Amino acid sequence: MPKPLNIGMIGYGFMGRAHTNGYKRVNDFFDLPYRPVLKAACARDKDKIQAFATNWGYESIETDWRKLVERKDIDAIDICVPNNLHKEIAIACAANKKMILCEKPLAMNTAEGEEMCAAVEKAGVANTVWYNYRRVPAVTMAKNLIDEGRLGKIFHYRANFLQDWTINADLPQGGNALWRLDAAAAGSGVTGDLLAHCIDTAIWLNGSITDVSAMTETFIKERTHTATGQKQKVTIDDACSFMCHFGNGSLGLFESTRYARGHKALYTLEVNGEKASLKWDLHDLHRLQYFEYSDEGKMRGWKSIHVSDGDQPYMNKWWVPGLQIGYEHSFVHQVADFLESLGKGTPCGPTFRDALETQKVCDAVLSRAASRSWKDV
Amino acid sequence: MPKPLNIGMIGYGFMGRAHTNGYKRVNDFFDLPYRPVLKAACARDKDKIQAFATNWGYESIETDWRKLVERKDIDAIDICVPNNLHKEIAIACAANKKMILCEKPLAMNTAEGEEMCAAVEKAGVANTVWYNYRRVPAVTMAKNLIDEGRLGKIFHYRANFLQDWTINADLPQGGNALWRLDAAAAGSGVTGDLLAHCIDTAIWLNGSITDVSAMTETFIKERTHTATGQKQKVTIDDACSFMCHFGNGSLGLFESTRYARGHKALYTLEVNGEKASLKWDLHDLHRLQYFEYSDEGKMRGWKSIHVSDGDQPYMNKWWVPGLQIGYEHSFVHQVADFLESLGKGTPCGPTFRDALETQKVCDAVLSRAASRSWKDV
Amino acid sequence: MPKPLNIGMIGYGFMGRAHTNGYKRVNDFFDLPYRPVLKAACARDKDKIQAFATNWGYESIETDWRKLVERKDIDAIDICVPNNLHKEIAIACAANKKMILCEKPLAMNTAEGEEMCAAVEKAGVANTVWYNYRRVPAVTMAKNLIDEGRLGKIFHYRANFLQDWTINADLPQGGNALWRLDAAAAGSGVTGDLLAHCIDTAIWLNGSITDVSAMTETFIKERTHTATGQKQKVTIDDACSFMCHFGNGSLGLFESTRYARGHKALYTLEVNGEKASLKWDLHDLHRLQYFEYSDEGKMRGWKSIHVSDGDQPYMNKWWVPGLQIGYEHSFVHQVADFLESLGKGTPCGPTFRDALETQKVCDAVLSRAASRSWKDV
Amino acid sequence: MPKPLNIGMIGYGFMGRAHTNGYKRVNDFFDLPYRPVLKAACARDKDKIQAFATNWGYESIETDWRKLVERKDIDAIDICVPNNLHKEIAIACAANKKMILCEKPLAMNTAEGEEMCAAVEKAGVANTVWYNYRRVPAVTMAKNLIDEGRLGKIFHYRANFLQDWTINADLPQGGNALWRLDAAAAGSGVTGDLLAHCIDTAIWLNGSITDVSAMTETFIKERTHTATGQKQKVTIDDACSFMCHFGNGSLGLFESTRYARGHKALYTLEVNGEKASLKWDLHDLHRLQYFEYSDEGKMRGWKSIHVSDGDQPYMNKWWVPGLQIGYEHSFVHQVADFLESLGKGTPCGPTFRDALETQKVCDAVLSRAASRSWKDV
Repeated sequence: MPKPLNIGMIGYGFMGRAHTNGYKRVNDFFDLPYRPVLKAACARDKDKIQAFATNWGYESIETDWRKLVERKDIDAIDICVPNNLHKEIAIACAANKKMILCEKPLAMNTAEGEEMCAAVEKAGVANTVWYNYRRVPAVTMAKNLIDEGRLGKIFHYRANFLQDWTINADLPQGGNALWRLDAAAAGSGVTGDLLAHCIDTAIWLNGSITDVSAMTETFIKERTHTATGQKQKVTIDDACSFMCHFGNGSLGLFESTRYARGHKALYTLEVNGEKASLKWDLHDLHRLQYFEYSDEGKMRGWKSIHVSDGDQPYMNKWWVPGLQIGYEHSFVHQVADFLESLGKGTPCGPTFRDALETQKVCDAVLSRAASRSWKDV
Repeated sequence: MPKPLNIGMIGYGFMGRAHTNGYKRVNDFFDLPYRPVLKAACARDKDKIQAFATNWGYESIETDWRKLVERKDIDAIDICVPNNLHKEIAIACAANKKMILCEKPLAMNTAEGEEMCAAVEKAGVANTVWYNYRRVPAVTMAKNLIDEGRLGKIFHYRANFLQDWTINADLPQGGNALWRLDAAAAGSGVTGDLLAHCIDTAIWLNGSITDVSAMTETFIKERTHTATGQKQKVTIDDACSFMCHFGNGSLGLFESTRYARGHKALYTLEVNGEKASLKWDLHDLHRLQYFEYSDEGKMRGWKSIHVSDGDQPYMNKWWVPGLQIGYEHSFVHQVADFLESLGKGTPCGPTFRDALETQKVCDAVLSRAASRSWKDV
Repeated sequence: MPKPLNIGMIGYGFMGRAHTNGYKRVNDFFDLPYRPVLKAACARDKDKIQAFATNWGYESIETDWRKLVERKDIDAIDICVPNNLHKEIAIACAANKKMILCEKPLAMNTAEGEEMCAAVEKAGVANTVWYNYRRVPAVTMAKNLIDEGRLGKIFHYRANFLQDWTINADLPQGGNALWRLDAAAAGSGVTGDLLAHCIDTAIWLNGSITDVSAMTETFIKERTHTATGQKQKVTIDDACSFMCHFGNGSLGLFESTRYARGHKALYTLEVNGEKASLKWDLHDLHRLQYFEYSDEGKMRGWKSIHVSDGDQPYMNKWWVPGLQIGYEHSFVHQVADFLESLGKGTPCGPTFRDALETQKVCDAVLSRAASRSWKDV
Repeated sequence: MPKPLNIGMIGYGFMGRAHTNGYKRVNDFFDLPYRPVLKAACARDKDKIQAFATNWGYESIETDWRKLVERKDIDAIDICVPNNLHKEIAIACAANKKMILCEKPLAMNTAEGEEMCAAVEKAGVANTVWYNYRRVPAVTMAKNLIDEGRLGKIFHYRANFLQDWTINADLPQGGNALWRLDAAAAGSGVTGDLLAHCIDTAIWLNGSITDVSAMTETFIKERTHTATGQKQKVTIDDACSFMCHFGNGSLGLFESTRYARGHKALYTLEVNGEKASLKWDLHDLHRLQYFEYSDEGKMRGWKSIHVSDGDQPYMNKWWVPGLQIGYEHSFVHQVADFLESLGKGTPCGPTFRDALETQKVCDAVLSRAASRSWKDV
C-alpha cells in the first residue's frame, strides 16, 4: 500500500486546480510508493480558499502561508502563487524541511533562483518545478528518441509559443487573473510565462544554451491597472524572440507572443538532426511528427505518430490505442514521477537547479533585448 | 452540497475503469445536485474485483451480481459486463428499483432490448446507455449546430469506425479480454461493437434510419477459442458496411472493420447540408471541421475548430483555450448530465429506449447482410 | 528527332483544353519517339472552333467530324464530346484506321462499349481512354507499391468522389456546359462522370470487381432544360453509393455525389492491406499517405509522402524536390505514355477494353440501384 | 492578335527551363497584348545550348552573351546565369535598350544592384526580377487580403525557407550544378538563395524592413571544389536567421537553412494581424490558411482555403474548382503580368528597384551576422 504524503497547497487558481487534479488522480492509474493526501489549502482570502478546499476535498485551510509551512502534518508544499512570492515561500519551506513543488518559472530572476537553490540543497528537501510539458507523452518520446541517438548530430532547434489573448487594449493589468500582465508580480511577460516553457524543454532535449541575441516588444504601451484604476505603463514584454547557440553546436530560434491572432496556446517545437527530425505542437499534443532519412528514398515523408499506445511513454497507464489523453495528464505524470523518485531517493527533474538554468537564459534574453544594438537597413 | 448517489459497479475491465473515473472526477469540475459514491464493485473473481476496488476506492465488493442488485445501500447499478449479460441484470435492477447505467450496446438483439425497455419503464427507474461519444465536446457542438439549423437540409451522412487490432490470425477468440471476438458473448462483431456507436450518433444528429442494405465479412474464418483451446469457426462479423436512408431524405453510408491497417480507433463522421458541412474524427477528438457556404465565395474553406474554449460545450468546466481534453472526459460528461437530469427528473439520453433504436438498426443491418441478393458484374 | 503524329481534336471544352495542353507540352519535358502536331480541331460551331484553334495553335478546323475522320493527314483522333457521341465517332475512326484517344467514360453503356471495342480491335488501331488520374504521380506510385507486394493481402478498398456544384436548384440541365445533368447526353449522372474514375483506378490497383449492391438518389427532381426552357424531370443520378467484392476477396465501398457541400472535386481513395495501407486525395494530389506495419511498434504512423522527387513516378521530368505539379500534368503523362507505347507497339492502358470493365461495373451499379430490395428498419 | 516579343535567353539550367516554359505556355491561357517568341538561347557551351534550344524550340543560339545582347532581333533578355554575372549583363542590356527579366537575387550585393538600377532607369527599359513566389495564387491572394485591410494592424511576420539537400559532407562546391555552394559565384549561401525570396515577399506584403539582428552558420567548414579538386574552405552561409522590425511597427522573424532534415523546399510565411491572420507554405502551395477574429466566438478556427476557384487570383485562367496548379505556374503568371504591364506601359514588380530593397536587407543581415555581439548566458 502506498504511504500517505501530505500536501499543502498555496494558491487556488488555474494551476491550483491542475496540480490538485494531478494529486487526486495519480494513484488510480499509477502504482506508486506514495499517495498524496490533500491536507490543507492556503490563501489570504478565506472564503475563496474555503470554497476551493470544499470543491477539491482539502481537509483544512490556512490563510497565512507561514502557518502552513510550519505545520507538522504537512510533508510537501505546492507553490501556486505569482512569481514574486516564490522565493520567500520556498526558502521558508526549506527551513521547515518541507518538500517543494513550485510552479514555473522558478523565480523573478537568476539572483532569486540562486538563493532558492541554495536553500533547498542545504536543507536536502525534494524539489521540483512544474515545467509540465516535459511529461506530455509525445514530448517525453521526443526526449527518448534524441537520447537514443536517432536524430544524430543536431543542426537546428526551433520553438515558439503563440497566444492571442491580450490583443484587446481594454484588458487591464494586475489583479487576480491578470497579474501576468504586471511585471511587479510576474517578473516579465511572455519570456517568463511562455518562453520559459520552451527553454526548459529545449535544454532538456538539446543541452545547454551558450549565448543569445534577443528582441522584445510591448505593443500596448498603457493599460488600466486593476489595483489603482489608473492607466499605467505596461512593463512586461508582449512578445519576445531570440536566436541562440547550443553547446552542441546547433542553432536555436525561439519566439513567443500574446499577439499572434488565431493561436490559443500554440507551443511548437522542432528539432532537425542529421539522421532524423521531429516536431510537436500543443494544439494536438497527442501527436509526434517524425522524419527519418534512413527510410528508402522514395518512401520518405513526415510520419504522424498518434502517441496513444502502450509502448509509448506513460500510455500503458491510460486507455487503449487511438484514445487520446489531454493537457491535464502532464501534471498527473509529474506527480507520478515525483512520487516514484521519492521512493527511490533520486531527484525529480526539473529540479530547482535545472529550472535555474532556464531562468539564466530568460535573464540573458531580457538583458540582451534591452541592450540591443541593431543595424539599420 | 450535492447529495450522495451510491454506485454499484458490475465489471472491472476497460469500461469499469472508464466509468469509475467518471464518477470520481465529476464533482471536481461540475456543480451538481448529486455526488457519486463508490459503494460496491462486483465480479465473480474475488481477487480481481478486490484489487479493482482497492485501486479505485470502492468501499466494498460482491461476487454475485444478484446480491449487489438487492443491496439497500445501492442507488444505481453500472453494467459493465459482456453483452450477453445485460438483459438479465438490467431486468433485475429494474425489479429492485435501481437506476441503471448500462454499457453499450443495449442488448444482444432487439427482442432483448424490448424486454429491457419494458422493465425500466414499468419500474420508472432512471436509465442511460454509455454511448459516450455524444459527449465529446466537438460532437455535442455538431449536434448544436445542426439543431440550430446551420447546415440546412441534410443530403449526406457518412461515418466509419476503423480499427486494425484483429488482423493477426493467431489472436484467439473468447475469454476475458477477447469476448468481443465471440458471438456468443458479444452478439455480433463490429456491428454491435463499433457501428452501434456510429448509429447512435447518427440518429441523434440526423434522425431515424428507415431502411438499409448491408454487407458483412469474416476475414479470418477460424480462431482458437480460449475456453476450449480448439480452433473454432469465427461467428462474428470482422467488417460491416451499410447504405441507408434517413427519415429526413438524406443518404447514409456506414462502414466498420477491424482490418483497416493503420487505424487504431478511427471513428469519423461527416454531415453534408445545403448550407454547411461538418466533419469529426476520434483520433483528434478535440477538433471539429466546418465548412460554411454563406462565407464570401473566395474565402470559403474547411475550418478546423479547436474545441477548447469556454463557449464550446462542456469546455467552461475544464482548462483554458488551446488546452485539449481527451477520451475519458466523455464519460465524465455523461455522469454530469445523468446527475443533472436526475436533479431535474428528466431522462438522460441515450436512454434504453433511445438505444433500442440503434439496436434495431444493427439487427436490420445484420439480417440484410445475411439475406444478400447481389448482382454479378 | 521525334516523328510527327498528327492530331485531330473533336470538341473544344474543358477537356479539349486539358488534352491539347498535354499534346503541346509533352516534348518539352519527355524524350519521346513521337511529337504531336495540332493538325485540326473540329466542332459544329465554326466561330467557336476557330477561336479555339487560334488560341491553341491548331493548323486547321473542321465543322463536321466525319470529314475530320476521313482526312488523310490525321493520324489520331481525340474524342472530347458528350458521351452519347462516343460510339459513332469511335467506330468511324476505326473504319478510317485512325488511332483514338477517347474521353471517359468509354460509352453510354456496356452494349455501346462492346461495339467500340470490337471496332478498334478489328481495325488494330491504337486506343486509349482518358482516365487521367492513373497518371497522377502519387497514384502511379500507389500502383507500384501494391504491385511490389508492399501492402500484402488486401482487405479493404474505399473511394469517393465528392462535389457540391449542383446543389443550387436553379441550375438548368442540358446545353453546352450542363450536358452532364442530362441523361440523354451523359448516360448517367455521377456514376459515369465521377464513379467511373474511381472504378477505373480501383480495378487498376486492386483487380476486378465481382458483384455490387447500390443506391442512387436524385435530390432535385426537376430542372429547367436549356433546350426547351421548360421544367423537366431530372433523369440523372445526383448521388450514387455502392458496396462490392473484388476478385481478390477484399471489400469495396464507393460513393459519389454532387451534393457534398464543401468539396470541390474531392476524389479520395484508400487501400488497407495486411502489411500496409495507403491513401490519396485529389485536393492535395501531390501527396501520398502511407502506413507501414513493419515499422517498429512505437514509431508507427501515417507518413505524408510529398511526391516531388526524381525517384518517384514521372517526377524526374519536372522540377526539383518540394516543387509540386498539378492536375494538368496527368494528361501530359498520358500523352507521354501513349507515344512511348506507340513507339514500342504496345497498348497504352486504359485501352477501350480496360474501360469496358469500368463500364460494366457502372451498368451493374445503376441496374442494382434501380432494382433495389431494401429492408425496412 | 498579340504582338511578338522576341526573347533572348542566357542560361539553360533549372531556371532556364522554368522561364522558357512560362514563355511557351502563357498565351494558351492568358489573353495578352504580346506573344513571347523564343528567338535565341545563349551559353558558352555550344553543344549544351544547342540541345537546350532544340528541346525547347529556340530559333537560334549564341555562345557569347555580348553578341546576343547586341542582336537587333531581340527585344528582351532573360538572365538565368549565376549571380556574379548579373550586373555586367544587365548593364550591357540596358546599353542596348533591351528589356530585362533577371533571375533573383538581383546582384551580388547592394553596390552592384545600385549600378544595375541606375542603368535600367537611365535607359528606360522594362525590367523585372524573378521573385516568382509573389505570383503563386495563394500568395497573391494574401497580398490582396492584406491590402484590403482584412488583417488590420500587423503585429508579426514570420517566414522561413527550409531545405536539407546539402547535409552530406561529400557534396562538392562550385561547378555547374553546385555554384550555389560557392560564394564567389553566388555572393552568399542561403541568404541570397532562399531568404531573398522570403524578404521579397515580406516587403511586398508588409512594407519596408528598418533594422535587423542576424546569425549565420556554416556547418560543413570545407568541401572539395569542383574547379580545383581540392578541399577548400566553404565561404557561404549554410543557415541564416534574423529578427527585424518593419516600418509599420510589426516584428519579423526569418530563418533559412539547408540543414533542416525532412524539408525539401519548405518556404512558409505567416502574418498575424489584429483582425485576422494568414499562413502559407510552398509544399502545399495551392492552399491558404486563414483565421478571422470577427467570426462568432465559438466558430473560430483556421480555414484551409483551396485556392483553385475562378474568383481567386489567376485561377479563372486554369481549370475548375478543386484542381490544383503547381510551382511552374508562378512563372507563367509573371510572364503574363510582365506582358500586360508592357501593354500598359507600367512597371511590373518586382522591378530592379524593388529587388534592390531585398538586396539591402540581405546585405544588412550578412553584415550584422558578421559583426555579432552576443551575450553569454
